Amino acid sequence: MKPFLDGEFLLSTETAQKLYHNYAEAVPIVDYHCHINPQEIYEDRKFENITQVWLGKDHYKWRLMRSNGVDEKYITGDAPEREKFQKWAETLEKAIGNPLYHWSHLELKKYFGYNGYLNGETAEEVWNLCNEKLQDDSMTVRSIIKNSNVMLICTTDDPVDSLEWHDKIGKDDSFDVQVLPAWRPDRAMNIEKSDFKDYLDKLSRVSSVEVNSFDAMMKALILRMDFFGEMGCSVSDHGLEYVMYVPASKEEVEKIFVRRMQGKTLSDEELRKYKTAFMLDMGKEYHKRNWVMQLHSGCKRDNNRLRYEQLGSDTGYDCIQNYAPSSEMADFLNALNETNQLPKTILYSLNPNDNASIGTILGCFQDSSAIGKIQQGSAWWFNDHKTGMTEQMISLANLGLLSNFVGMLTDSRSFLSYARHEYFRRILCELLGEWVENGEYPTDEKALEKIVKGISYNNAIRYFGFDLEYK
Amino acid sequence: MKPFLDGEFLLSTETAQKLYHNYAEAVPIVDYHCHINPQEIYEDRKFENITQVWLGKDHYKWRLMRSNGVDEKYITGDAPEREKFQKWAETLEKAIGNPLYHWSHLELKKYFGYNGYLNGETAEEVWNLCNEKLQDDSMTVRSIIKNSNVMLICTTDDPVDSLEWHDKIGKDDSFDVQVLPAWRPDRAMNIEKSDFKDYLDKLSRVSSVEVNSFDAMMKALILRMDFFGEMGCSVSDHGLEYVMYVPASKEEVEKIFVRRMQGKTLSDEELRKYKTAFMLDMGKEYHKRNWVMQLHSGCKRDNNRLRYEQLGSDTGYDCIQNYAPSSEMADFLNALNETNQLPKTILYSLNPNDNASIGTILGCFQDSSAIGKIQQGSAWWFNDHKTGMTEQMISLANLGLLSNFVGMLTDSRSFLSYARHEYFRRILCELLGEWVENGEYPTDEKALEKIVKGISYNNAIRYFGFDLEYK
Amino acid sequence: MKPFLDGEFLLSTETAQKLYHNYAEAVPIVDYHCHINPQEIYEDRKFENITQVWLGKDHYKWRLMRSNGVDEKYITGDAPEREKFQKWAETLEKAIGNPLYHWSHLELKKYFGYNGYLNGETAEEVWNLCNEKLQDDSMTVRSIIKNSNVMLICTTDDPVDSLEWHDKIGKDDSFDVQVLPAWRPDRAMNIEKSDFKDYLDKLSRVSSVEVNSFDAMMKALILRMDFFGEMGCSVSDHGLEYVMYVPASKEEVEKIFVRRMQGKTLSDEELRKYKTAFMLDMGKEYHKRNWVMQLHSGCKRDNNRLRYEQLGSDTGYDCIQNYAPSSEMADFLNALNETNQLPKTILYSLNPNDNASIGTILGCFQDSSAIGKIQQGSAWWFNDHKTGMTEQMISLANLGLLSNFVGMLTDSRSFLSYARHEYFRRILCELLGEWVENGEYPTDEKALEKIVKGISYNNAIRYFGFDLEYK
Repeated sequence: MKPFLDGEFLLSTETAQKLYHNYAEAVPIVDYHCHINPQEIYEDRKFENITQVWLGKDHYKWRLMRSNGVDEKYITGDAPEREKFQKWAETLEKAIGNPLYHWSHLELKKYFGYNGYLNGETAEEVWNLCNEKLQDDSMTVRSIIKNSNVMLICTTDDPVDSLEWHDKIGKDDSFDVQVLPAWRPDRAMNIEKSDFKDYLDKLSRVSSVEVNSFDAMMKALILRMDFFGEMGCSVSDHGLEYVMYVPASKEEVEKIFVRRMQGKTLSDEELRKYKTAFMLDMGKEYHKRNWVMQLHSGCKRDNNRLRYEQLGSDTGYDCIQNYAPSSEMADFLNALNETNQLPKTILYSLNPNDNASIGTILGCFQDSSAIGKIQQGSAWWFNDHKTGMTEQMISLANLGLLSNFVGMLTDSRSFLSYARHEYFRRILCELLGEWVENGEYPTDEKALEKIVKGISYNNAIRYFGFDLEYK
Repeated sequence: MKPFLDGEFLLSTETAQKLYHNYAEAVPIVDYHCHINPQEIYEDRKFENITQVWLGKDHYKWRLMRSNGVDEKYITGDAPEREKFQKWAETLEKAIGNPLYHWSHLELKKYFGYNGYLNGETAEEVWNLCNEKLQDDSMTVRSIIKNSNVMLICTTDDPVDSLEWHDKIGKDDSFDVQVLPAWRPDRAMNIEKSDFKDYLDKLSRVSSVEVNSFDAMMKALILRMDFFGEMGCSVSDHGLEYVMYVPASKEEVEKIFVRRMQGKTLSDEELRKYKTAFMLDMGKEYHKRNWVMQLHSGCKRDNNRLRYEQLGSDTGYDCIQNYAPSSEMADFLNALNETNQLPKTILYSLNPNDNASIGTILGCFQDSSAIGKIQQGSAWWFNDHKTGMTEQMISLANLGLLSNFVGMLTDSRSFLSYARHEYFRRILCELLGEWVENGEYPTDEKALEKIVKGISYNNAIRYFGFDLEYK
Repeated sequence: MKPFLDGEFLLSTETAQKLYHNYAEAVPIVDYHCHINPQEIYEDRKFENITQVWLGKDHYKWRLMRSNGVDEKYITGDAPEREKFQKWAETLEKAIGNPLYHWSHLELKKYFGYNGYLNGETAEEVWNLCNEKLQDDSMTVRSIIKNSNVMLICTTDDPVDSLEWHDKIGKDDSFDVQVLPAWRPDRAMNIEKSDFKDYLDKLSRVSSVEVNSFDAMMKALILRMDFFGEMGCSVSDHGLEYVMYVPASKEEVEKIFVRRMQGKTLSDEELRKYKTAFMLDMGKEYHKRNWVMQLHSGCKRDNNRLRYEQLGSDTGYDCIQNYAPSSEMADFLNALNETNQLPKTILYSLNPNDNASIGTILGCFQDSSAIGKIQQGSAWWFNDHKTGMTEQMISLANLGLLSNFVGMLTDSRSFLSYARHEYFRRILCELLGEWVENGEYPTDEKALEKIVKGISYNNAIRYFGFDLEYK
């Protein structure tokens, strides 16, 4: 029996252990997609207690607590932080097999030196230990990032954002981790949302373009892309129910835009046409700038209206949208490719059933303009666990070249979640090790080193064109 | 090599074996969903031979025989019972990897003390052994149930049922196993069926409400729910092609009802509106009564018209319906939740691909009104095997709290199928044992005991509110 | 650690090794579905170099090279063959976990005696070794086939084909492997294609029937089926986006046909009606002749328009079509079954998610007219790897009788790909061995021998009715 979460955690073979300790463990982290707040980096925030770090924004943990019948008071409500932590500890004990069980204990071990396990009885001990440690200068946001061997972070930013904090961090010589913006223009695409017009007002203001047409909106966005580019952005990101393709003429799209401006309710068909046009135009701009297009699809958001009205978005009420026509995804990529305007693209689906169809679609659009030009993104959100990661990598390997995979990102709102890169790398090495030990790939050290370091670090550097050295 | 089906069947690690033998094996069985006939319990039926027990109603076995090219004469036809058994034995030999291979041999071992394996050659020996044993008083229906350590059974009953046999069993002091009705109002929902009007006539008669409108039908059903409740019912069950959500006004629904009464053919849209309204009203009633709502979806029934006309329903001609929009399932639950009328709910899909989407949907509606309020039901019917159960539990663990799972039911028409609870518990312990031995969960005996006993027995007691003691 | 690709490749248990070496390895190969060119068999082609054999038509390999950013010049372009091979070798090194890694090395070992591994550095050595070996008389097409222990091959042929080469091979006494045509009338079904009318002209010519109606087309096709039957054909094959069922009257179908002849664009509904009618008529003819109907569905073809215009079809730009309503597949089979005209049928889906739904559909139409009358085909194309094969066989075992499975085919355009039968058999024996060693099936040598030889060879002989001896 392997001890709980020891140095060989998830590494069951000698080869896996060697690959992890010799190659994966040492290379730095490039976290090319996350949701952390750059202001907290600039201000080098300190946390008062572990509840703030762990339970402040983490809707993954909130969901588990609700599954355990915990009252909302202890989750997003006004219960004392110590009590919230107690409820979390009692929930975690039941989370056998859940990635949060592993992540939480990896974080306790890595950042707080705690080697036990958290449950209702040990909660007090862990609470005290963590809170004491959090007062230490090694536990400020910047120190955590540095100590986690992170070289570069891409945040997620709206086109109207001033990027003030990115700017300040960039100018601060005392902190040499690159903190770059990423372009996420969802609010300009979500024409059906009630705040769309307000949003266009903001966009008009920051761009100095009067946004009174689809065309004008695109002009404004392009100006913002220029600005983002100057701030070091080379990555975009889109949140989509699914990757759709319903082409329409420029005129039709302008008409739809006008109808929305007049306060009309758009039909589903109109929405799909507008969004298709929006995504095509964005894609072409990314291609021109050599930015990477990230498409996060397969999510239906804010399903619990009662809670949505109380708590807003991103509070743990999203689910998998299983409507995802592979034909439209293929046709969308083809439409960009047909005019040689398909940018480097990463496809993430929230539905693990889409692994195979995505793996076959991306193979239709690979070419010599980039190694692994079209990627399937790392197992995401609800799939961000041993099963999900393993299945995504096996699928990649079966259908293409796993070796060219750009690997892991945290997608997180927490500064402790760099442990997820460790989690990913262990799972990667376990998989590769299993194949080697099973005689399915030779013990070719040189090739294996290249594969492990590539997926852990080097591939992302090359793919995104980051200004960092290969390891 | 492990011997065939020995005491450590399916238990490959020491931890798995300990968990099974120390905790899982000993706790009783609560079979909260099955299709056995309460009359046979009351009358304490004896079987003349193994063909009657095994092949009388079991369309799982019929399907396998048809796959083997066996003539229908030996399946549902008039061939002698010994010959039918022979055909089954010859088929079973080929069923490597099939759960029926395991269940059948577990049953032969557990109930008949047979340790060999059944095939064409051993059929005679097994036939004789079983038939002799079946004459024993320990092999009456009641004895089988008692000896299987069953504490409670929920049958599946139509609203118009008199529940005569439940009543008689309840009043019979010589049998202390609880046999409770479960509410299955499918015939009232299936407005498109040719016997719908006949059914409403029956409903009118038993309820003394003249069912001449949707509203009246609901009134009649509510009276029947009162009656079912008095008889100890706290569980409902619905068979659905998929969980749909097409809301309509009361008036529209009444109009649809009228059109049906007039003999008109309803459109698909009308059917969906009627069924949505029906399910919403039912759900609200369940919430009021604190009943559990079970939704069995993803099944397309009676696909072989030729056989349907000869043999009727439930004869082995059903398949997975893979149209299952996650958006409608989420919207349906939200509609009940929005007015605080969402009952405890168990979602079963016949399509194993739905594990992940269901796992994410249920997480959107958990709250403090019950621990694990929304559940994904145990791997069901075509998924009722090692792969299906393991995948369902891994999915549960990945996406929520496996520890709160209410566990197994037989869904069976046979009195020998309590062996499936053993099968399930072995698979559960194997999974947990693997995680522990792999260092993914600590060897925390106390926590593990709670988890194993909970999923095997205690969680169901708590969730359904059965009048039984925790173990 | 197991050595790379040794004699026990993929066989991790003693039982698996015994099953493979004692039973699977020895029985011959029946390759009942492939895309090789019978002319090359007749002419007993010799290859100049390994690039011709491996990279001439193999779009699986092309896709991997594109994934690696290789320029099209080295793939389908005019780069020297040695350079193309170099690019392939450099790509293969990265293909850890990919079936092409295994197939390529199995072929190098089996046909060229090479025991190392191919990468950029060993490319020169392998190039020389292979090319020298290819000059040997043991490496002509016929010799490869004979030495691979192949007894029978079904090619894939259009109804208008003269079958000249099949005829010549049949008459050539010096070659005793049966090379039979298979009936693939896709061009008659794909009424929307631009070359449909040209195709009908050809069909008119070869059949001497003036094809000016749907009915006439069917008459012409039936004449061709007579001819194919005389040439030994007993297998048909269809490429479908999905198995659809939209019934229409004879008159409607004739009208659709006329509209197409008039150059009108058909609606989606019309296409579905035409194709349904076409498939129903074909199915009935197959039933009459006792031919097997193979349905290959779930593929969306030629997604990259840019490349399609340069390279045409079957060049590596296809993907999974994930629209596959199980209800229509079931209804289509039922429509044939209802009049007792359902032929033996093999269902292949390109989408691995369809395993379960197909497994349940086929169980609805089994009967005593054939053992395993409705089959799920072997894991196909994008699923033709360890994961895909294993999952398909587990699904078959869970839902029916794996023992009756007709097993593997190459679906290949290459003469070296008989190694895939070895690959399949190893995976089969590994799976069976695992069950036996895990105590899930007894060590019943006789039964296991029957199962292994059946799936590897005998079942196909019986199912297709080939004129070959059981082994």
